[in-house]
Amino acid sequence: MSNITLEEIGQRAKSAEAVLRVLPASRKNKALQTAADYLMANMKMILEANSADVDEAKENNMPPALVDRLLLTEARIAQMAEGLRQIAELEDPIGEVLSMKQRPNGLLIGQKRVPLGVIGIIYESRPNVTADAFGLCFKAGNVVILRGGKDAVHSNYAITRTLQDALLKCELPQDAISLITDTSHETAEKFMRLNDYVDVLIPRGGAGLIRTVVERATVPVIETGTGNCHIYVDESADLDMAVEIIFNAKTQRIGVCNACESLVVHEHIKDKLLPRLLQKLKEKHVEVRGDEASRSVCSDILSATEEDWGTEYLDYILSVKTVSDIDEAIAHINKYNTGHSEAIITKDYGNSQKFLDGIDAAAVYVNASTRFTDGFEFGFGGEIGISTQKLHARGPMGLKELTSTKYIIYGNGQVRP
Amino acid sequence: MSNITLEEIGQRAKSAEAVLRVLPASRKNKALQTAADYLMANMKMILEANSADVDEAKENNMPPALVDRLLLTEARIAQMAEGLRQIAELEDPIGEVLSMKQRPNGLLIGQKRVPLGVIGIIYESRPNVTADAFGLCFKAGNVVILRGGKDAVHSNYAITRTLQDALLKCELPQDAISLITDTSHETAEKFMRLNDYVDVLIPRGGAGLIRTVVERATVPVIETGTGNCHIYVDESADLDMAVEIIFNAKTQRIGVCNACESLVVHEHIKDKLLPRLLQKLKEKHVEVRGDEASRSVCSDILSATEEDWGTEYLDYILSVKTVSDIDEAIAHINKYNTGHSEAIITKDYGNSQKFLDGIDAAAVYVNASTRFTDGFEFGFGGEIGISTQKLHARGPMGLKELTSTKYIIYGNGQVRP
Repeated sequence: MSNITLEEIGQRAKSAEAVLRVLPASRKNKALQTAADYLMANMKMILEANSADVDEAKENNMPPALVDRLLLTEARIAQMAEGLRQIAELEDPIGEVLSMKQRPNGLLIGQKRVPLGVIGIIYESRPNVTADAFGLCFKAGNVVILRGGKDAVHSNYAITRTLQDALLKCELPQDAISLITDTSHETAEKFMRLNDYVDVLIPRGGAGLIRTVVERATVPVIETGTGNCHIYVDESADLDMAVEIIFNAKTQRIGVCNACESLVVHEHIKDKLLPRLLQKLKEKHVEVRGDEASRSVCSDILSATEEDWGTEYLDYILSVKTVSDIDEAIAHINKYNTGHSEAIITKDYGNSQKFLDGIDAAAVYVNASTRFTDGFEFGFGGEIGISTQKLHARGPMGLKELTSTKYIIYGNGQVRP
Repeated sequence: MSNITLEEIGQRAKSAEAVLRVLPASRKNKALQTAADYLMANMKMILEANSADVDEAKENNMPPALVDRLLLTEARIAQMAEGLRQIAELEDPIGEVLSMKQRPNGLLIGQKRVPLGVIGIIYESRPNVTADAFGLCFKAGNVVILRGGKDAVHSNYAITRTLQDALLKCELPQDAISLITDTSHETAEKFMRLNDYVDVLIPRGGAGLIRTVVERATVPVIETGTGNCHIYVDESADLDMAVEIIFNAKTQRIGVCNACESLVVHEHIKDKLLPRLLQKLKEKHVEVRGDEASRSVCSDILSATEEDWGTEYLDYILSVKTVSDIDEAIAHINKYNTGHSEAIITKDYGNSQKFLDGIDAAAVYVNASTRFTDGFEFGFGGEIGISTQKLHARGPMGLKELTSTKYIIYGNGQVRP
């Protein structure tokens, strides 16, 4: 691994940016296909590099679940290659003119979609992010600078070199992707302040990583956050549907940001809903923690504390809050949610609209599971993360969210009076 | 002025946010009209408060140009009121559904425009910003927290109280606008890190203020930057048009971010263009600083240094760089520009397209003056500033740029397989 400085990485990224800015879709797609071929061809080399990381992780007594995140297999590398091929098939977002209008003075002013420029990705120990993040950023005409976790540095380097070789083969600048191999905290801090070269930082990982990046970065950050997601069961809900949706949102996959963590239930239906729901949740041994009103219905419900309302369990645990009307439900959810995904189960038209309008979150559902909040389910063909901030992008970030715009103005000699 | 803490201001802003999020346009427009009436009715009180600021500024030997920025007159207050009335006439951006598509599983997924939430504005000594910023933010459904300059604190307080009274009259939360009257640096620093309550910070002022905010804030910032704007005169340019446009972009108003600071000229036309241009620029006593090639044409041109290429003069000074082709022009501009406004003067179709694609800036012009980059000229009816960053908003920021989106999803019982 070379001893190139962060400053040099930034300069080279800027040079590559000028090439990618005007690169036609056909050449980008060819490069993505070639990169997929190279990943398959270099499989042995990548697996060897990954073995070095995995061995070191085991020596350092990394917990098995984390070792599994780090581990690459032939199938996982094939998946990375297939991911790049799928990105090649997606429509290129660059160059679309979002609007064009003629002003009274004859100026024709249009707004055109362009790449963001240089995107910095700071991530933890999943080596597949290296190829996935490159694929999406590159397709949208962006250069990426990656700073992966220390644990995965050999794997990330092997993948990055493979992708760079593919770029060279396609007569494109290899600096369209670069990896910061110095995984020290000092270098990470400098990277977060590399405003001269980096247009945006996207942290991908746990809450701690994201908090650090938001706290320290001077480069603009897109925050991809945690999900303390609620389902509110309205008085008029179809209870069969409610039970199915809650069961799905809570248990279909527990460790993900769009899983349901908290149930909010109208007091008039708690007696009918809760016993049936608890029966169903027993299939997956879900622990339920509720307020007094819910515990008066089911003795199986443990006592919830104030802390429970704000907790993203990522586990087989569900909190239950009883409310006397939809306004109380909306106020409770807006107080404790993390701006991710929230759902109402109702048959009432007015309440569905009230919930859609009143809830402040990236995705608000009527009569569906919160588990649909992701780029594939939304039809974006992929995603770089789910933004829980309101600036630039909110919700699943696909190719369009990796772009900016510029105004293009056609004149014929106009001057300002 | 009250001793309310920043934390309390934040909490109150959040309460007001819930009301503004769902406020219909008719009520917002009524409040803006009422606010305009109140500004006119409170004119005497506002002028008295302003006198206190102006007297203090004079005692502290503030330069006359800055005292003038601080000064309010009956006409200037009437302008502020008129500005609010104009904003009331603009179309409400909130609620627009940008797209809605049905997924194969029947989910109907739409993207709806919603307010950003709580917007923090940090500005210097122009008291009119208090009303202008409130008007645009409020119309887009946002709460504003203002932190104006120390010099203008009495004026800002008088204007804020007037706007708050108008809100109360309209039975709306007065906390839709609040002013931080503690103008200490410590409080400003805390404000920039008030992530629990503030969704975005917009600094409005000089380069120093903007740098400080970008450097210190943990709240997401929209950078409104400086403009080192270029005009490139291509080999095929209509020289009459070139002279008119350069004269306009340089001299129509010198202290603004979209004024032309640097001329880039194709070497084949420098002999024809420069003498005519210099003749015209003499009308306004513009000093011209150029490279060797340009000085060989006109002995009036002073010698430019490397520093000139990167300088935003905001004065009757223009730098001149000679290039041998359009590629060199694009490379030079992309190296030294600040991402604001850049123009080409040409008759050549291919070069016009190449320039529009290749230049990395918020606004790229063909055959027109760079002075058009502002929200009024672009037809937005107003602007809160001109963004020179690529995240969220680029170019003039009108009402739409003060919004976010959320996904609204209509289901009928969908769960994720």
